[in-house]
Amino acid sequence: MALSYLILMVTIVTAVASPIDNQIHLIMPHSGSAGLKHSDDINCLSWRLAIETDNLQGWTQIPRSCVDYVGNYMLGKQYRDDCEYVAAEAYEYAKGLNLTGDGKDVWVFDIDETTLSNLPYYASDEVAFGMLPYNSTSFDEWVAKAVAPAVPGSVKLYEQLIELGFKIVFLTGTKEPFRTPRIKNLKAVGYTEWEKLILKGENEHGSAVVYKSGKRKELEEAGYRIRGNMGDQWSDLIGSNPGDRVFKLPDPMYYIA
Amino acid sequence: MALSYLILMVTIVTAVASPIDNQIHLIMPHSGSAGLKHSDDINCLSWRLAIETDNLQGWTQIPRSCVDYVGNYMLGKQYRDDCEYVAAEAYEYAKGLNLTGDGKDVWVFDIDETTLSNLPYYASDEVAFGMLPYNSTSFDEWVAKAVAPAVPGSVKLYEQLIELGFKIVFLTGTKEPFRTPRIKNLKAVGYTEWEKLILKGENEHGSAVVYKSGKRKELEEAGYRIRGNMGDQWSDLIGSNPGDRVFKLPDPMYYIA
Repeated sequence: MALSYLILMVTIVTAVASPIDNQIHLIMPHSGSAGLKHSDDINCLSWRLAIETDNLQGWTQIPRSCVDYVGNYMLGKQYRDDCEYVAAEAYEYAKGLNLTGDGKDVWVFDIDETTLSNLPYYASDEVAFGMLPYNSTSFDEWVAKAVAPAVPGSVKLYEQLIELGFKIVFLTGTKEPFRTPRIKNLKAVGYTEWEKLILKGENEHGSAVVYKSGKRKELEEAGYRIRGNMGDQWSDLIGSNPGDRVFKLPDPMYYIA
Repeated sequence: MALSYLILMVTIVTAVASPIDNQIHLIMPHSGSAGLKHSDDINCLSWRLAIETDNLQGWTQIPRSCVDYVGNYMLGKQYRDDCEYVAAEAYEYAKGLNLTGDGKDVWVFDIDETTLSNLPYYASDEVAFGMLPYNSTSFDEWVAKAVAPAVPGSVKLYEQLIELGFKIVFLTGTKEPFRTPRIKNLKAVGYTEWEKLILKGENEHGSAVVYKSGKRKELEEAGYRIRGNMGDQWSDLIGSNPGDRVFKLPDPMYYIA
């Protein structure tokens, strides 16, 4: 454990000291394994690859023995580099497209862990990077604060896409009552305009795949062309009307079906 | 470079000395960057995550500056652990299924980098883990030798699936003229029976996605139920009739559309 703490501290100090990225999260070091003993012996890198490739589905919490690994990854340079690499690849793809100029070429962004980062909340002791059970009350309180930073690389990509002529659609599982704080939060970090901001109605139930597929279908039926679709969950990117190309951002903290 | 060599050598020595896995590849250390200078500055871990999640598509060679990284990964413990983790997850899924007992529940396996490993060939100086251009002549010569080892974890999964009652279908892009050496190679490493071994006809052209989708469609039209589908390329796993569940094995050495 001592070494893990040391690595975590070094990571945080490095992050704080780095001038590279103003989106680095200035958060408190969390409590490691939250006082619980490691109970399994899995290769956390293998676990992360499995969840990022959707080989492992339906998981509810991160493995107890991977909490330090996930914490170090999320707080460190690698997560930022991974996000920025996906954004750069998305831009390479986007700039090669021919847009029609009729305002119907759209790029769909999920919000949580795609454009806004909940890392400050997830790094808190009561969440421990997703090792502890999901608490909707405290998460909702966090969302209502509207203080989430941007996901690394996402604001730059957003600006580049608008410059190329794309219209932006935010499609999130956040419920309608949070529209006001979400708008406040999006604008605060640099997302200042959009074609649509689609939140989940209070009467809309069912999985994220069904909900998001339905909304994308409505977009296409309204004449929009989904040229790109970016999310941190595979449920953002599969199902019907996924868009011409999908981009998966990393998220080893939670799973949404 | 000196440190890279040292790490590579340590990796190989560790691999050779380890009693854990009889599928460890006893290969010669390769020549690092093959004498070419590193020409780019990318985060190789970010690159690998991007290719494994299909964010980066259509690449033809691994980045020159990642050849040592890919070599160390492929020769080291992490690749074996990653493969074995996917196999274990596949078994967890498979054993939860109800099979009908009519012999129509099948598991589709790709061959290259899914059941048989070309790592001894890819580690050679003339390939440099995929940094140098693909040479179909020398690759065909390698396949004809029929000496590929098994991918870590794959023979065990194969045996477990047969024990559960699945029929096995091998579906590969290997061309028909190589049927005899492929059978010899499969049997030599422990794949002793199968329902079908589907190779690509000499007159079958088009992408792997189209070819494999067509063959899976034929399987389902013949009454088979594809309960699982495993490959190292996304082109094994997308398209039509993908199967009830897909499993992506790691492969940072080459891309097949």
